[in-house]
Amino acid sequence: MNDPSYTVGDYLLDRLAELGVTEVFGVPGDYNLEFLDHIVAHPQLRWVGNANELNAGYAADGYGRLRGLSAVVTTFGVGELSAANAIAGSYAEHVPVVHIVGGPSKDAQGTRRALHHSLGDGDFEHFLRVSREITCAQANLMPATATREIDRVLSEVREQRRPGYLLLPTDVARFETEPPTAPLPRYTGGTSPRALAQFADAAAELIADQQLTVLADLLVHRLNTVDKLEALLAADVVPHATLTWGKSLVDESAPEFLGIYAGAASAEPVRRAIEDAPVLVTAGVVFTDMVSGFFSQRIDPARTIDVGVQQSTVGNLVFAPLEMGAALDAVTSILTKRGVKSPAVTSPSHQVQPSKPDRDLPLSQKVLWDRFCDALTPGNIVLADQGTSFYGMATHRLPQGVTFIGQPLWGSIGYTLPATLGAGLAERDRRPVLLIGDGAAQLTVQELGTFSREGLSPVIVLVNNDGYTIERMIHGKTAPYNDIVAWRWADIPTALGVTNHLFFRAENYGELDDAFVAAADHRDRMVLIEAVVPRLDIPDLLTQLVAPTSADGSPRR
Amino acid sequence: MNDPSYTVGDYLLDRLAELGVTEVFGVPGDYNLEFLDHIVAHPQLRWVGNANELNAGYAADGYGRLRGLSAVVTTFGVGELSAANAIAGSYAEHVPVVHIVGGPSKDAQGTRRALHHSLGDGDFEHFLRVSREITCAQANLMPATATREIDRVLSEVREQRRPGYLLLPTDVARFETEPPTAPLPRYTGGTSPRALAQFADAAAELIADQQLTVLADLLVHRLNTVDKLEALLAADVVPHATLTWGKSLVDESAPEFLGIYAGAASAEPVRRAIEDAPVLVTAGVVFTDMVSGFFSQRIDPARTIDVGVQQSTVGNLVFAPLEMGAALDAVTSILTKRGVKSPAVTSPSHQVQPSKPDRDLPLSQKVLWDRFCDALTPGNIVLADQGTSFYGMATHRLPQGVTFIGQPLWGSIGYTLPATLGAGLAERDRRPVLLIGDGAAQLTVQELGTFSREGLSPVIVLVNNDGYTIERMIHGKTAPYNDIVAWRWADIPTALGVTNHLFFRAENYGELDDAFVAAADHRDRMVLIEAVVPRLDIPDLLTQLVAPTSADGSPRR
Repeated sequence: MNDPSYTVGDYLLDRLAELGVTEVFGVPGDYNLEFLDHIVAHPQLRWVGNANELNAGYAADGYGRLRGLSAVVTTFGVGELSAANAIAGSYAEHVPVVHIVGGPSKDAQGTRRALHHSLGDGDFEHFLRVSREITCAQANLMPATATREIDRVLSEVREQRRPGYLLLPTDVARFETEPPTAPLPRYTGGTSPRALAQFADAAAELIADQQLTVLADLLVHRLNTVDKLEALLAADVVPHATLTWGKSLVDESAPEFLGIYAGAASAEPVRRAIEDAPVLVTAGVVFTDMVSGFFSQRIDPARTIDVGVQQSTVGNLVFAPLEMGAALDAVTSILTKRGVKSPAVTSPSHQVQPSKPDRDLPLSQKVLWDRFCDALTPGNIVLADQGTSFYGMATHRLPQGVTFIGQPLWGSIGYTLPATLGAGLAERDRRPVLLIGDGAAQLTVQELGTFSREGLSPVIVLVNNDGYTIERMIHGKTAPYNDIVAWRWADIPTALGVTNHLFFRAENYGELDDAFVAAADHRDRMVLIEAVVPRLDIPDLLTQLVAPTSADGSPRR
Repeated sequence: MNDPSYTVGDYLLDRLAELGVTEVFGVPGDYNLEFLDHIVAHPQLRWVGNANELNAGYAADGYGRLRGLSAVVTTFGVGELSAANAIAGSYAEHVPVVHIVGGPSKDAQGTRRALHHSLGDGDFEHFLRVSREITCAQANLMPATATREIDRVLSEVREQRRPGYLLLPTDVARFETEPPTAPLPRYTGGTSPRALAQFADAAAELIADQQLTVLADLLVHRLNTVDKLEALLAADVVPHATLTWGKSLVDESAPEFLGIYAGAASAEPVRRAIEDAPVLVTAGVVFTDMVSGFFSQRIDPARTIDVGVQQSTVGNLVFAPLEMGAALDAVTSILTKRGVKSPAVTSPSHQVQPSKPDRDLPLSQKVLWDRFCDALTPGNIVLADQGTSFYGMATHRLPQGVTFIGQPLWGSIGYTLPATLGAGLAERDRRPVLLIGDGAAQLTVQELGTFSREGLSPVIVLVNNDGYTIERMIHGKTAPYNDIVAWRWADIPTALGVTNHLFFRAENYGELDDAFVAAADHRDRMVLIEAVVPRLDIPDLLTQLVAPTSADGSPRR
């Protein structure tokens, strides 16, 4: 016997729970309030209210990167558009986020009257059309087809690893239906046995008895094939690198880890190891401007096996349909079967531990990130905002078990602050660490109090360089538009509702050292470290990246 | 001789200056930095950087409502989408805002590569298509046609009083061109002499010697015909009202001002005066759910002359094309020529001044807004956020010369905080006053420091009712999702970079009184008043509005 009050809203929530979601982010609005009651009442779900919708979308993104799926609820028009930047970012960065928008009842829409949160023209699909540009699947739910449409959108989100959009009118949300009777169906047939066999033959022929080098990136993570990549790297001595986008995909403390490849902006030994590799496997790699030294990668297709999402190539031969996992398995099998043991590698970029600086050494980007890396412990989740923080950290080796999250393609400043909330809630047993500039933090700062409410105790390194330093390096070094209003960071946490935190301001190495020691000693408290660095100091990698590009996205001549 | 370095960007800026813009809002990003140099260098323009793009869009909206045009600059993708909610709000509320988006060069777009701030799919028009849903005109500027396209979009923005969108690639911005040689052309032919004459005849016949009553609203303001409305109201004894949307359109201290009409939610004498009027002129009126007591207006078309944007009606006869100003003039002329003096009216809703409450009377919504109205002085610009503030103020009479700004159709909470910045900069000689709830203020609070940097000294009444009270009244009176993180408002201004402000926390009448006295005494300082009211106390008008509606936008049964 069905529960007589089981609704379309309940069906959607049960599906989200089935897919591993336990927290739902968002902001209440009158078109979603009743649906929120069902979230609050759901046995596996918990409502996490955010300060605004952009922050909610960012939090869902951070959560989705670790959990493999997330959900954010907004209200019609005002709420959903405020989240649009976050959702588009999830699209660009391949993060599966379900955006649920509470809308006016079908009944009220039918009158075509000027309802609040609409444009007043009687057209209630303007924002559905907006969502088509930034999500992989959309549905304007109707009573008769709602459950089928929910399943379609959720399936696409799961398989494509990109956001989906569900417009849930109030009367559809409360429409009675039956619970799911079977798990959400999966795609099948992603790999053709013929394509797989032909790929394996071609790859074996190219590899022969040569040493394999691997360049792996983000999509290996998104396609849930990290274990298969690890098996491949373990099947022989396989020197390997990632781009910055996929940083922390592999164990960066392994001797075979070369470092970060970034085209012409790479450290020279890494560049040579990748570009001169006898045979290179590129796995899940997408070259964007900022991760490739502005498309300066030099990869010879004739010596490359490219493992992509739905197809792979060997030289100029294309094999499809062929899923990434199956292709990685095939390469592993080649290495295992051939019985060759490649020579050990001495990773060219292993850093020599510098001697401990003097306490009164003024902070610089280099001093900051070197000391920060020492402070990391296995389990940390590091989120680096797309300014000097990201580029400062990108070339530092991370200890095993540390996850690194950045946003180099979408590059929306301020993203990481709410994303850290989401990441911390996705894996509560890991301490999140946020690295963010003062300019970026101003965009999304109001989420700070939510960490306290949710019982999270992140370490936050606030890089205070008095404005938008990354923009200064691109254009307008002393221009007034790259300045910001000076805030008193010491007062910010308490003002915004953070309780029981520690604050440190560090202008030299000694003060920074003290702060990190205290952070390690107080794992149950938020620790905010204001690290004061010179306005025009930037990490080396950023110098490399900014040099060949101009502000307009074309190589500087 | 032309300046050899005069660019498309300069042309756009010259046009904006011509249209009355002196401040340009926005946030820097690498695709707009070079264009910002031209703003900084422009003799009539000034750059006003904001903490984030949503706030920049809201500030531009507030500025545009008073100046008649405004401009906001964002960067491709991340920036423009963050402003989407603000731009859509300007569309819904008929505010002319020019949204200028710095984009990747045409050159770089042509490669279809994965540039940062794009979705990585080589399609650089996703966000242009988004803008089509929320602006009245759009252009993706190209070198050859840029100036013509700029003129087209600016003309539409000015005439339609709605936002427009210009995608300005970096290489197009710096393309050389010539300055404008003539002012931006205006629409002509908006009124047919035949239609006007026939309208005048029909109106004269309907009016005859009866007393005229006028219900005027927002679009009279947007179409720049307030002076014509004032002439009409002066041509005889003309009792009149506005909706809340158009509040402060007319002098609310005039004896013929009836009050606010809100359908069934009106004060009874106002409702009767409007609905039972022998002849009613409705001018620039749009009935939306929240301004009409959920479409409960009872206006008899047979006794109504409706003056609209491009057409007017008398009874069931339609006259077009006919501009609002011409139609208002025609009605004024009828009143003037007929030589009838209608009887004086005693405005039914004139408030009796209550005796001064005891100092220890606890604050309530009623006490708060009554005292606040006493504190207003001519010249104030009052922005009331779309929660209890808006509805609390809507029914209070404003002194002459006070401008009231709300957002009852779009209703995006948090809007008014940055909009107050924009309004204050649009008319620097008037003191802005912001009325906002604690929940709403959290969405956009980071703009607070910008007031200080810009030398503005607003009065801010922060209505602290510990969460989203307006939502509580609609649904979920005690639900956790209507609670928010508690902030320490006393610490907020200093933390966010406000200097030289005064803070008051008021829990009773006496403390509130002291705060308003101090605010009047310190016109050169920001004054933040935290007014603590009960969680579930709401203004009478909101009680009326919430009663007949349910959360889903349909009448409650």
